[in-house]
Amino acid sequence: MRRRRKKGADERLLSHKTYVIRENVEEFKGKWNLKFENNNPIHVEFGTGRGKFITTLAKQNPDVNYIAMEIKEEVLLKAVEKAVELNLDNILFVWGDVSNIKEYFKEGELDRVYVNFCDPWPKKRWAKRRLTHTNFLNMYNHILCEKGELHFKTDNEKLFEFSLNEIASNDLMLKNISLDLANSDFSENVTTEYEDKFMSQGMKIFRCEAKKRN
Amino acid sequence: MRRRRKKGADERLLSHKTYVIRENVEEFKGKWNLKFENNNPIHVEFGTGRGKFITTLAKQNPDVNYIAMEIKEEVLLKAVEKAVELNLDNILFVWGDVSNIKEYFKEGELDRVYVNFCDPWPKKRWAKRRLTHTNFLNMYNHILCEKGELHFKTDNEKLFEFSLNEIASNDLMLKNISLDLANSDFSENVTTEYEDKFMSQGMKIFRCEAKKRN
Ligand SMILES: C[S@@+](CC[C@H](N)C(=O)[O-])C[C@H]1O[C@@H](n2cnc3c(N)ncnc32)[C@H](O)[C@@H]1O
Ligand SMILES: C[S@@+](CC[C@H](N)C(=O)[O-])C[C@H]1O[C@@H](n2cnc3c(N)ncnc32)[C@H](O)[C@@H]1O
Repeated sequence: MRRRRKKGADERLLSHKTYVIRENVEEFKGKWNLKFENNNPIHVEFGTGRGKFITTLAKQNPDVNYIAMEIKEEVLLKAVEKAVELNLDNILFVWGDVSNIKEYFKEGELDRVYVNFCDPWPKKRWAKRRLTHTNFLNMYNHILCEKGELHFKTDNEKLFEFSLNEIASNDLMLKNISLDLANSDFSENVTTEYEDKFMSQGMKIFRCEAKKRN
Repeated sequence: MRRRRKKGADERLLSHKTYVIRENVEEFKGKWNLKFENNNPIHVEFGTGRGKFITTLAKQNPDVNYIAMEIKEEVLLKAVEKAVELNLDNILFVWGDVSNIKEYFKEGELDRVYVNFCDPWPKKRWAKRRLTHTNFLNMYNHILCEKGELHFKTDNEKLFEFSLNEIASNDLMLKNISLDLANSDFSENVTTEYEDKFMSQGMKIFRCEAKKRN
C-alpha cells in the first residue's frame, strides 16, 4: 500500500488563498480589475501546467495582470508555489476548466490569451477537445477586447496545422507565424516546462499570434 | 568549341504560334476570354517551369482556361511541347516576367493564381523578389476576381513561413494550410517537376490556399 501523503495537493493548493480561486469563479466576471485593484491589461494562460511561463512573464511585466488557469491540482500547485517564491502580486490562479471561460470572463475583458503546448488530441473525433478548436476560438474571441491577441505555441506539427486553419477560418488575423521558433526572428521567447523538454530533445517549436479584427 | 544547336530554344518556342505569346501581351488585357473564345474562368500559373502541373490541369479541366507564365525560354519550350503533345486548346503560354502582370491582366480578370516552388531568394535583402512578397500579393489581389484564390506550394520551410505571414498580413484569407502535403487530407494534388524531385528525396511539401475577402 502506498503511504498517504500528509496533505493532498488540493488542500495545499487551497491554502494559498490569496492566489488560488476555485469556487464561484463567475463572481469575478467583469470584475477582475477590482480583484487586482488596478486597471492594467489582463493576460490569461489556459492550461498553465507548472507555470514557468506565466510566472516568468508576471515577474517581467509588473504592469500586466496575469491569470493562469489549470484543471489539474498537482501541477497548478507547482505553478502557485513559483508565484509564492517570487512574491508576485500581479497573478491569480484559477483551478478550473477552460470550457467554462464564458462564465468567468466578460465580453472584451481580456487583452491576451496564451495557449501553450495544449494536449494535441490526435484523433479526428477528439478535435473538439483541442484548445484551438473553433469552439474555443469563438470563446477567446468573445472575451478578448478589441485588438486583443491569442498567442499559441506547440511542438505538434499536426496540431499546429489544424490550429492555423481554425484560426484563419475564424475571425482572427494571423501574424508572426514561426515554423521553427529556435531559428526565427522572435527573440523575446519565454519557454514553458514542456517547451524546455521538447527543445532539449531537438524538436521544433511552432508558434503564432492572432489578432482580433476590428 | 561547342556545337551550335540547329535552332535556338527561342526560335522553336516562337514557332508554336497558337500557344505562345511573347510580344504585346498587354493587348490581351481584359480580353483573354476573347482570345480563348469562351467565358470560362481563367487560372494562371506564374513561374511554370516545364509545365507538368498546368498542362495536367488543362487536360483534366476542359472548362477552365489556363495561362502559364515563364521567363526562361528553354523550360517554357518543354511546357509548350507538352501542350502540343496533349493537343490542348484551353491553355496559352506567356513568355514574360511576372513583375508585369498588372499590364497583362485587368482588375478582377482571373479566377485563380498558382505559384509553385518559386525561387526562395533566401537572403533578407532579396525578399522583394519572392513571388509571395506583399508587392506580388497586391498584384494578385488586384487581378483576381471576387472570391478569387491563390494556391501556393513550396518545399522551402523558410519561404513558406514568410509566405504565410505575407498572406495573412495582406487582405487574403488563408485556408487549407498543409505543413506536410503527403500526409494531409488533400487528395487531388497534381505535382510539378520540382515537386516530384523533392518528394523523391523524401522532402516535405508545404501548401496553402488564400481567398480574397469580400
Ligand atoms: C501538455 S500540458 C502543457 C502545460 C504547459 N502549458 C507547458 O507548456 O508546460 C497541458 C495542460 O493543460 C491542462 N488542461 C488541459 N485541458 C484543460 C482544460 N480544459 N482546462 C484547464 N486546463 C486544461 C492539462 O491539465 C495540462 O496541465
Ligand atoms: C524553381 S522553378 C519551379 C518551376 C515549376 N513551377 C515547378 O514547380 O516545377 C521557378 C521558375 O520560375 C521562373 N520565374 C522566376 N521568376 C520569374 C518571373 N519574374 N517571371 C516569370 N517566371 C519566373 C523561373 O524561370 C523558373 O522556371
